[in-house]
Amino acid sequence: MTIGIVGAGQLGRMLALAGYPLGLDFLFLDRSADVPAAALAPVLAGTFTDRKLLRRLARRCEVLSFDWENISVPALRAATHGLRTRISPPLRALATGQDRLAEKRLFERLRIPTTRYAAVGSRSGLERACARIGLPGVLKTRRLGYDGKGQALIRKRADIAAAWDALGGVPLLYEEFIDFELEVSALGVRGRDDSEALYPLTRNWHAGGILRLSVAPWESAALERQARAHLRAVLRDFSYVGTLAIEFFVCKGRLVANELAPRVHNSGHWTIEGAVTSQFENHLRAVAGLPLGSTAACGHAAMVNLIGRMPPAAAVLAQPGVHLHDYGKSARPGRKLGHCTLVAPSADERDRRTRALLRALAVSLVRAP
Amino acid sequence: MTIGIVGAGQLGRMLALAGYPLGLDFLFLDRSADVPAAALAPVLAGTFTDRKLLRRLARRCEVLSFDWENISVPALRAATHGLRTRISPPLRALATGQDRLAEKRLFERLRIPTTRYAAVGSRSGLERACARIGLPGVLKTRRLGYDGKGQALIRKRADIAAAWDALGGVPLLYEEFIDFELEVSALGVRGRDDSEALYPLTRNWHAGGILRLSVAPWESAALERQARAHLRAVLRDFSYVGTLAIEFFVCKGRLVANELAPRVHNSGHWTIEGAVTSQFENHLRAVAGLPLGSTAACGHAAMVNLIGRMPPAAAVLAQPGVHLHDYGKSARPGRKLGHCTLVAPSADERDRRTRALLRALAVSLVRAP
Repeated sequence: MTIGIVGAGQLGRMLALAGYPLGLDFLFLDRSADVPAAALAPVLAGTFTDRKLLRRLARRCEVLSFDWENISVPALRAATHGLRTRISPPLRALATGQDRLAEKRLFERLRIPTTRYAAVGSRSGLERACARIGLPGVLKTRRLGYDGKGQALIRKRADIAAAWDALGGVPLLYEEFIDFELEVSALGVRGRDDSEALYPLTRNWHAGGILRLSVAPWESAALERQARAHLRAVLRDFSYVGTLAIEFFVCKGRLVANELAPRVHNSGHWTIEGAVTSQFENHLRAVAGLPLGSTAACGHAAMVNLIGRMPPAAAVLAQPGVHLHDYGKSARPGRKLGHCTLVAPSADERDRRTRALLRALAVSLVRAP
Repeated sequence: MTIGIVGAGQLGRMLALAGYPLGLDFLFLDRSADVPAAALAPVLAGTFTDRKLLRRLARRCEVLSFDWENISVPALRAATHGLRTRISPPLRALATGQDRLAEKRLFERLRIPTTRYAAVGSRSGLERACARIGLPGVLKTRRLGYDGKGQALIRKRADIAAAWDALGGVPLLYEEFIDFELEVSALGVRGRDDSEALYPLTRNWHAGGILRLSVAPWESAALERQARAHLRAVLRDFSYVGTLAIEFFVCKGRLVANELAPRVHNSGHWTIEGAVTSQFENHLRAVAGLPLGSTAACGHAAMVNLIGRMPPAAAVLAQPGVHLHDYGKSARPGRKLGHCTLVAPSADERDRRTRALLRALAVSLVRAP
């Protein structure tokens, strides 16, 4: 079975690495042939809105999936028109994941707590939103934001003009700024037969808007219970097929939904070594109509992103029990170039080794474990 | 760094899968482009003795390795002549692994117990060997034997003629037949900096000369001690770089060396899920001059080969905790098409689940766990 994947970045690369052992083949589509997945599968190069190219991809695949969410839903729908090619995850989930307003409305409809917000379409609308929701708050583009891009913090009324100048002109969302205690993400997978498998809760640390560190399982029975309920509600609402991630803030012991990703997610990379079945393998099992694998943790894992500049492989691999994942990308400030993972027999041991790894990588994080 | 690999079968495929996360690239050479590794890396197609092609491979790689041992040592040596391309594992180990007589002589020289044997070059030589070593015995081709091919059992004098007719005309070895209790293999890896890492002992079950089942760790302190000493002696003697396997018979509590493989080995496939660092990753770390990874087991693993016909992926994956490795090969009786692995928290649990898996795959084995 050939899986077509729109987007051939590191997520696509790791999908292919997880899928070959299952007997799957891969065909990618991306803007260039110089992409992380290109080393290990063919890539159709062109724009993501090129309907002819998408059609060519769809004709050659049994299932179409994607490794990022900023792709045209109508173009994808048209590409498979009249073909037996399935699209998984479903387009409705993709459309929701593309638009912060749609996400908020979904969370509200499913009674998943989220931050207060207002859609913003004009400078005066932003003024009204700030007045209604209050200050401080964050102005975000509804679309195409990732890794902290497309956001502006508004602390006081005087910041409004600069925020509008920076982001105005596209549909925006203004959200209350919440002073969260920590960030977690919930990852789950749903099969074509409606089976579900949820990963243990993951705690995340960001720096400069970019994920730096994840540890899992993050043991908190109360948060885990909430996360599972929210994740299940979203998976079922979409009749979802594949892996889905929801990022939450934790405020006063309660989960507050931040955003969702209808795909494998950076905060789930620890599952490659740290869970019985990785998020990548389970995504593929789901979209290929195969039984899901166990999502149980096999120890206590930590994942550190390698950003901007790759450390020498030898330095990473000299750390006992550390696994390296090099995405084969060229270096650029702020760019995710790889990650590394360790798995320890206890949470204390994991935290001790994580601190040593962060020191070795010269990464400093506020409130790191 | 590009690793050139002569042979693009399932071992090459699994090397590539393990190597991309390390940031390595791959270029293969094999007789056809329709080979397991071709899905995920470029393949130069031609004969293994094509010096021009080998030269092309060598020019494009920092390190030359191989995924099977039946390749021409002089052709490989010539291919790298005058280039800075390293060959790992060393050619002396490759030459020894190709020739059962050289293996026997190595074991003798290193005082590693092995079966009694005689080199056989003629029909009358075979008669003499049978008289000297005794009956029953096994006549084997010195070269190109694998998976029980190139062997004939001689139970009584009357079998000599048939055995000679079947195998005569190439250099042969006659070995005493030993009534072993069980078969084990020892896998170890040696780095470019002389560091060593040895995997726990693996117990193997063969059927029809082909490996069917391996379980590890096979816990026997006395055997483990012997295996480690023998493995170290061989690794050091060759100034070895990469993964090496030695298969042993167990007779009256003592290891008797059967053969060695200067490469990753089928009996080490359990290390993908069952050890901190797989034999594939450690082979690549070694040949690329990177620090070796931990060879510790992460539980109790069993690996079952899928031979001749692939079971439906869904049937394998429906077994809890079972991982599938499909090599992407077409079906043919006796052909290794894939394997599957499970990892359990205890040896008893592993054995119970292994029995269930063997039943599900309709594999019956004498003296299975």
